[in-house]
Amino acid sequence: MSKAFSVPVTPQGKSALATLPPWHYSSDCLAVEYGVDQNAIAALLPPGLTVDEKSAGRAFFWFLDWQFTGSNDELTDPARYQYREAFVLVEAVFDGVPVNYCPYIFVDNDAAIARGWAQGFPKKLGSVYQTRSFSAPSLAAAPLAKGSRFGASVTAHGKGWRPPVSSWSKPSPILRPFSTGRRPCAVTSHSSRPAAGTNHRSTNSPCRSRTVSRSWMWGGSAELKLPVVDGEDMHLIAPLRVGQGYRLGMAYSVTDLRILKNYAG
Amino acid sequence: MSKAFSVPVTPQGKSALATLPPWHYSSDCLAVEYGVDQNAIAALLPPGLTVDEKSAGRAFFWFLDWQFTGSNDELTDPARYQYREAFVLVEAVFDGVPVNYCPYIFVDNDAAIARGWAQGFPKKLGSVYQTRSFSAPSLAAAPLAKGSRFGASVTAHGKGWRPPVSSWSKPSPILRPFSTGRRPCAVTSHSSRPAAGTNHRSTNSPCRSRTVSRSWMWGGSAELKLPVVDGEDMHLIAPLRVGQGYRLGMAYSVTDLRILKNYAG
Amino acid sequence: MSKAFSVPVTPQGKSALATLPPWHYSSDCLAVEYGVDQNAIAALLPPGLTVDEKSAGRAFFWFLDWQFTGSNDELTDPARYQYREAFVLVEAVFDGVPVNYCPYIFVDNDAAIARGWAQGFPKKLGSVYQTRSFSAPSLAAAPLAKGSRFGASVTAHGKGWRPPVSSWSKPSPILRPFSTGRRPCAVTSHSSRPAAGTNHRSTNSPCRSRTVSRSWMWGGSAELKLPVVDGEDMHLIAPLRVGQGYRLGMAYSVTDLRILKNYAG
Amino acid sequence: MSKAFSVPVTPQGKSALATLPPWHYSSDCLAVEYGVDQNAIAALLPPGLTVDEKSAGRAFFWFLDWQFTGSNDELTDPARYQYREAFVLVEAVFDGVPVNYCPYIFVDNDAAIARGWAQGFPKKLGSVYQTRSFSAPSLAAAPLAKGSRFGASVTAHGKGWRPPVSSWSKPSPILRPFSTGRRPCAVTSHSSRPAAGTNHRSTNSPCRSRTVSRSWMWGGSAELKLPVVDGEDMHLIAPLRVGQGYRLGMAYSVTDLRILKNYAG
Repeated sequence: MSKAFSVPVTPQGKSALATLPPWHYSSDCLAVEYGVDQNAIAALLPPGLTVDEKSAGRAFFWFLDWQFTGSNDELTDPARYQYREAFVLVEAVFDGVPVNYCPYIFVDNDAAIARGWAQGFPKKLGSVYQTRSFSAPSLAAAPLAKGSRFGASVTAHGKGWRPPVSSWSKPSPILRPFSTGRRPCAVTSHSSRPAAGTNHRSTNSPCRSRTVSRSWMWGGSAELKLPVVDGEDMHLIAPLRVGQGYRLGMAYSVTDLRILKNYAG
Repeated sequence: MSKAFSVPVTPQGKSALATLPPWHYSSDCLAVEYGVDQNAIAALLPPGLTVDEKSAGRAFFWFLDWQFTGSNDELTDPARYQYREAFVLVEAVFDGVPVNYCPYIFVDNDAAIARGWAQGFPKKLGSVYQTRSFSAPSLAAAPLAKGSRFGASVTAHGKGWRPPVSSWSKPSPILRPFSTGRRPCAVTSHSSRPAAGTNHRSTNSPCRSRTVSRSWMWGGSAELKLPVVDGEDMHLIAPLRVGQGYRLGMAYSVTDLRILKNYAG
Repeated sequence: MSKAFSVPVTPQGKSALATLPPWHYSSDCLAVEYGVDQNAIAALLPPGLTVDEKSAGRAFFWFLDWQFTGSNDELTDPARYQYREAFVLVEAVFDGVPVNYCPYIFVDNDAAIARGWAQGFPKKLGSVYQTRSFSAPSLAAAPLAKGSRFGASVTAHGKGWRPPVSSWSKPSPILRPFSTGRRPCAVTSHSSRPAAGTNHRSTNSPCRSRTVSRSWMWGGSAELKLPVVDGEDMHLIAPLRVGQGYRLGMAYSVTDLRILKNYAG
Repeated sequence: MSKAFSVPVTPQGKSALATLPPWHYSSDCLAVEYGVDQNAIAALLPPGLTVDEKSAGRAFFWFLDWQFTGSNDELTDPARYQYREAFVLVEAVFDGVPVNYCPYIFVDNDAAIARGWAQGFPKKLGSVYQTRSFSAPSLAAAPLAKGSRFGASVTAHGKGWRPPVSSWSKPSPILRPFSTGRRPCAVTSHSSRPAAGTNHRSTNSPCRSRTVSRSWMWGGSAELKLPVVDGEDMHLIAPLRVGQGYRLGMAYSVTDLRILKNYAG
């Protein structure tokens, strides 16, 4: 049963939603920098993480079109090996080290949920879209060039059809390259059972090598709204201010997980 | 953070895919009895479960239209609190007690995945449909009456759009009431992390009270096919023989979980 | 090529989204009576229809779970032959006869779009849900009994994932049977081509026999909201007042279409 | 009511699935050349079109990731203005002119259905995926370079969840640029009503300017299968031989429609 990373576990391993790492990813990304109330960040952080006093509540809202693969050209089965994702990173500190903490994340693929929950990403199903750049010149092509505008949206809940979340990065003229510091990502896994007293939580740092495709990096002005929606708490980290928007290519590989801290449930 | 049973965990608890039990369910069900190679069953069972020599490889393929709720009329939000499900139960023995073991299960709702994985159901996203009975008389009504025919199907993979699984319970004239023994259900949870050596598995028995709506119980002849499909191993428990099909209403409540056996990963 | 009612037209007729009538339907319905500004109704009516001065802007918002079939037990293929629908009917007058006119309608099935457009229903893809009644007693069963509460929602746009429409019939205690007058339904088909001057419109009355399942008819208090959403004009007929809500079973068959009026494009 | 090209028609024009042309498109495409039985092609052609004796049954299976826009940066709303498409073109002759005729086409967007049916494309809902090329180097990136492999799939029916069509262009090493003759596209619109004798059909040629992005054009070996599936006739034009596969960028604009031939229903 060695091939299955997730359920269903079978001797042949074909049914499993996820097979064993390494997992390789490449993506197109839209990211918007914004500022959040530090108290709202503090309320979301797990024990051991604290707000980053130096970051002034800095957060990023990301939209990603992903393709992933194992070691066997799985990417040639795009119905399973592509997905779209939207998530928030808020800046925090763990053990004196600046980190990005992920409190909300949406994907449109159950294999991405399986791998994400195992690492600690709190994924839910959602429908995520971002404007893409196409090669053939057209008013519809949105090339990576000055004056292009990009939009993105995420909706989620239950089966993803109801509209509790509408995060929208309004189109922006593209002006300057992206530049932000790198922080390790921290996420909290949460393993509950119906039985009382059997919960388990840990905060983890996914170990991964990352490559950013600099020739595809652009920045510009941005808009972002996180309205109040039924069944979501995300409006509590709605933007107090909105910074620049960025478009970039990014790749990484996941091979391991570092557990930063375990908690009793 | 006490209201969240699953991620995302927030102080307000609205974002969580699942809130704390009890969870209450009511459903319409189609079930087809069939027979499977005992060696194929044995290959799927976790340590501690063995084939039931007396059952001759008996299995059931179930299709269910579910509605669930907590304690606050959540059923009035049907986009989140309805889902469709298809699963297989194979008969086995745990510690001398006859049980039903669930090796494959598909749902169309991420909240159902969250609650299911916590109990040990190996859920994947799929698209599931069954013929429904409607009250207004019509050729389209499929009443619970002699001569009515019911069909069902499940497709799954990745985002549920690719066709690896097509299980089809062909329509059947409805002849006689359902009658089968009750066995506790056993399922195996599987908690992996990318890091080597951190897997955890346990076989559990979800604790629940169950009610079957006898006035809605009918049986008849049935057909069932589990073809070979890419990305699935389920054809290995394809029917050697097909028995009766049944249609019934069923309700139950989940409050707790009994862990039958823990394993090292 | 006689079997195909819609594209794709093939000699064998299996590929067609819709085959030739008659079409038979049975459904569970939630309907909410409400009142609309008569000027807003007038703005939506096609030439030949006028506001019904006696109806004081009466409208109904309907949610329907449908099953349909041709003459060959197509209902045993529920993935194709079930769909969910939400629509508005506003009261109007055509040629001195009181009618119900349908300006907005959403479905989750392309075969329903094909049959609907051919009749004149202005269907778009949406995701529609309503609370269902199940037979097995449970807090989740929502039986047709005093005190039960029902909800419904519709979301739509593009692929149905974005949230421009959120119509919500809030749960209501069920108090009294449904009673409303019958009016023929009027709808306007609209056949455009990219070439200028080749549009065609007609207002039609779908010919159908209808059966209402009275034993399943209940009424009660209701709530309804039609908020402003991007990409929709439906908020212009938002409720000025909300009347009763109703739950009922309904069946009908479609065999023909009566063209009330043709227009130049 | 001048802004609406399709239903729903409102004075404000926001609800309409499609607004008036011009429509601008840019796409990434995978196309596989293959050969079909000429009799099978003949059986699909509408009156006035005949098989192209010189083409030896040549056909192409296309997969396209589209972005489209009107004149107002609609592409910044990607949930509505992106879609995925799969279709077949068979070579034929109309009035002595070689054309490509489209008998089957699948899309995942109702606005694409509305615009397509108006032109004559026999669109159905389906789920379509193709491997994408990403900029950030990774095993998952599938760059446009020698050795990359691409796959694609389409599934369709009813709500698109059931698997009647599984067309698969197996991954192929990319070897040489694309080169094929240009033929105008011919499609047949089909306007039925439930009333007998009111059908209308015409064969049309969508007028459009086209740009192919040559720097993104690559070719290589290919595989293609069109298996027998329930509810589809497409296997009747399954490949007798499979030629090269191609990957390219393509853009075009639609402004008008040329009606080649009208038929009585």
